[in-house]
Amino acid sequence: MALNPQYEAIGKGFVQQYYALFDDPAQRPNLVNMYNIESSFMSFEGTQLQGSVKIMEKLTSLSFQKINRVITAVDSQPMFDGGVLINVLGRLQTDEDIPHAYVQTFVLKPIEGSFFVQHDTFRLVLHDTI
Amino acid sequence: MALNPQYEAIGKGFVQQYYALFDDPAQRPNLVNMYNIESSFMSFEGTQLQGSVKIMEKLTSLSFQKINRVITAVDSQPMFDGGVLINVLGRLQTDEDIPHAYVQTFVLKPIEGSFFVQHDTFRLVLHDTI
Repeated sequence: MALNPQYEAIGKGFVQQYYALFDDPAQRPNLVNMYNIESSFMSFEGTQLQGSVKIMEKLTSLSFQKINRVITAVDSQPMFDGGVLINVLGRLQTDEDIPHAYVQTFVLKPIEGSFFVQHDTFRLVLHDTI
Repeated sequence: MALNPQYEAIGKGFVQQYYALFDDPAQRPNLVNMYNIESSFMSFEGTQLQGSVKIMEKLTSLSFQKINRVITAVDSQPMFDGGVLINVLGRLQTDEDIPHAYVQTFVLKPIEGSFFVQHDTFRLVLHDTI
């Protein structure tokens, strides 16, 4: 499969769509449709999870209700299987916690005219890292 | 090709090897062997580069001589083509500049018993992001 020339638009569109679901506790369970039942991998603050069931257990266990999110940079690259590598740098504040920078990497895999998240890595950039 | 069960060791080993070359100005030109002449992509602070020639032009144009680097986290995941996705979070200080957190993502592609860097994304996490 060839490189997808729309990788920039796909990356930006995906990030917008993903966080619109993530940041709304009522919508968050719908993220299940972004992941594959078996072949999706997530690293969440160093914890490794495989498959949409375990990934959603983690995502729906997050207890905060309110998220303030600012996207600082979205770097996308086309992959040789038609997928897209997306690196997000941003800042988020959950409930009344202090804001933290964070990084999240997605690998989108093409499937039947759409994409699913094959790889997902999330890390907060804690202040003592700086 | 199957998932490579050694992905953790490959990720950690690669990061060590890559930065040993990068952080030594005399060795930095040898990074050329990590990239493919055509099919390597780099995003360096938002600037997109393709192929080892352009990537090395960028990397060898960096003028600092001294790098203090601390690796905070390395998150690796096995990919379905036998490659490895590596996310690095760290802190670096160049010459007498103030230290900055940074994130770098590598996608290693298997080739003839070894790997090359197919995707590379680098971003500093600037203080005003926090």
